[in-house]
Amino acid sequence: MDEFELIRRYFNRDSMIAGADVGIGDDGAVLTPDASKQQVQVIDTLVEGVHFPHATDAADIAYRAVAVNLSDIAAMGAHPRWMTLALTLRNLDEQWVESFASGLFEAADKYGVGLIGGDTTRGPAVTVTVAITGEVEAGEALLRSGAQVGDEIYVTGTLGDAAAGLRTLQADTPDDFLLARFLRPTPRIEAGRALVGSATAAIDVSDGLAGDVSKLLNASGVGAEIDIEKLPLSTAIQARFSITEQQQLALLGGDDYELCFTAAPDVVSGISGITRIGRVTESVGLCCRLNGDVVEVDSSGYRHFQ
Amino acid sequence: MDEFELIRRYFNRDSMIAGADVGIGDDGAVLTPDASKQQVQVIDTLVEGVHFPHATDAADIAYRAVAVNLSDIAAMGAHPRWMTLALTLRNLDEQWVESFASGLFEAADKYGVGLIGGDTTRGPAVTVTVAITGEVEAGEALLRSGAQVGDEIYVTGTLGDAAAGLRTLQADTPDDFLLARFLRPTPRIEAGRALVGSATAAIDVSDGLAGDVSKLLNASGVGAEIDIEKLPLSTAIQARFSITEQQQLALLGGDDYELCFTAAPDVVSGISGITRIGRVTESVGLCCRLNGDVVEVDSSGYRHFQ
Repeated sequence: MDEFELIRRYFNRDSMIAGADVGIGDDGAVLTPDASKQQVQVIDTLVEGVHFPHATDAADIAYRAVAVNLSDIAAMGAHPRWMTLALTLRNLDEQWVESFASGLFEAADKYGVGLIGGDTTRGPAVTVTVAITGEVEAGEALLRSGAQVGDEIYVTGTLGDAAAGLRTLQADTPDDFLLARFLRPTPRIEAGRALVGSATAAIDVSDGLAGDVSKLLNASGVGAEIDIEKLPLSTAIQARFSITEQQQLALLGGDDYELCFTAAPDVVSGISGITRIGRVTESVGLCCRLNGDVVEVDSSGYRHFQ
Repeated sequence: MDEFELIRRYFNRDSMIAGADVGIGDDGAVLTPDASKQQVQVIDTLVEGVHFPHATDAADIAYRAVAVNLSDIAAMGAHPRWMTLALTLRNLDEQWVESFASGLFEAADKYGVGLIGGDTTRGPAVTVTVAITGEVEAGEALLRSGAQVGDEIYVTGTLGDAAAGLRTLQADTPDDFLLARFLRPTPRIEAGRALVGSATAAIDVSDGLAGDVSKLLNASGVGAEIDIEKLPLSTAIQARFSITEQQQLALLGGDDYELCFTAAPDVVSGISGITRIGRVTESVGLCCRLNGDVVEVDSSGYRHFQ
């Protein structure tokens, strides 16, 4: 089976995709955007052995590739429309491709994004690049740059689970819940949409909360305090790790794909599943406090100031 | 220097990009599409050692990655607007990245496409995925599926040069002109735009003329005859290869990134730089003729029928 037949068989479903006048099979896709909206475009790559372990199930790789891109769409307050896929494979294993396609469409269907095109190539490592186009009300995209002194800082869901899940896998005692949080992150599309018009700034937590909050602060030209003891923790992470480990994973572990956002006090109180973790300040940079005491945070964790 | 600083320094130029309200640096780019147009989206990946030799200059890799994607935009009759880049590197070599960025922006500036976002990752091979969004008049995109019996078949430029260039490189007698045709293909944006409203079908020649024409014929549900002796050949290929080699390279060599299109007789006579190479017929499939005689074509070349 050659590349073209492979693509036809597994990726080219006969279903109509709204707004896509031409999909897979021509030199490019032809789309009719909503003329009243702005577009949001994101692109992200996952590389075997770097972003996921070599033994990862093909369906999970695909699901995760779609989900992490949808997380960027969520962080902009957009709703997802169309997706393209650039897939590099070591060899043409039909069963692997079938599994990959099932995970891809599971995520795509769940969040309403249509696959409109792609490219399949060979290479020395499985490399998955997904690009997604979303739409947002004109002028309403959530940026990193709008945080104001006096705003409160919130996150969705719980933090640290994905990094904790990887750690249980590496220790050969995988925790199903925590590992699923790594393999199949939940893009917070609904929360992102609810924040349009309410949040002043937003970012998704992909590299770790401390680092990602710092990017938001830099973009906004403000500082912040975060209360480590307020970071939301799942019961699963609490059952497997010490309180210090939990907090370090929540503060520094990557791959959570939760949203971190800022809003004026009480503006977002109607949104469920969010936790207030700190506040925007005038002083430059991020200050972390543990039960009120300032602690110093670096890539190895946090420690109390001398 | 970490990844973020690298991106800022080499890829985030301070120039405004028309229609891009937010570019590099947030979770996604925010775009305002032209409400009267349709969009064309394309994506293509180049892998080191597969799509270009390991020793290829970083600037050439980048130029080529942009050009081959622009070629798909050209084949749809669109004009390019915005581009995202997913770049996987073996290691962070600042000089390499600087050279890569120079080649990327050389191609981007030449054809008027703006870099609005991207992702940089590590992996075992240099892998470059470019995604481009173009715009086209509503309902006017050039598809593969519109060829009509009685149409004539045309190509832009000359054929076989890129494959010939690779062959001179492999023989350690590189021909500068032919190699440049491989490393820095010319996306036929202008020709594609001129064909809107005139051509009935179009495709870009990336896998080899015979194979790509066959895809166009399949999509259109028609057949065709091609006259091998009419395939346009550069003086450089004529100087280095036998006539049979020239014709085989022109018919089967990939990476030309010329346009092949169909149009009713005399409709496109005002367009310069194109050559008529055959005609659309009722009979299924592609029939190749050499000086009138039917020849059989497969991946190893052509031979006269028994």
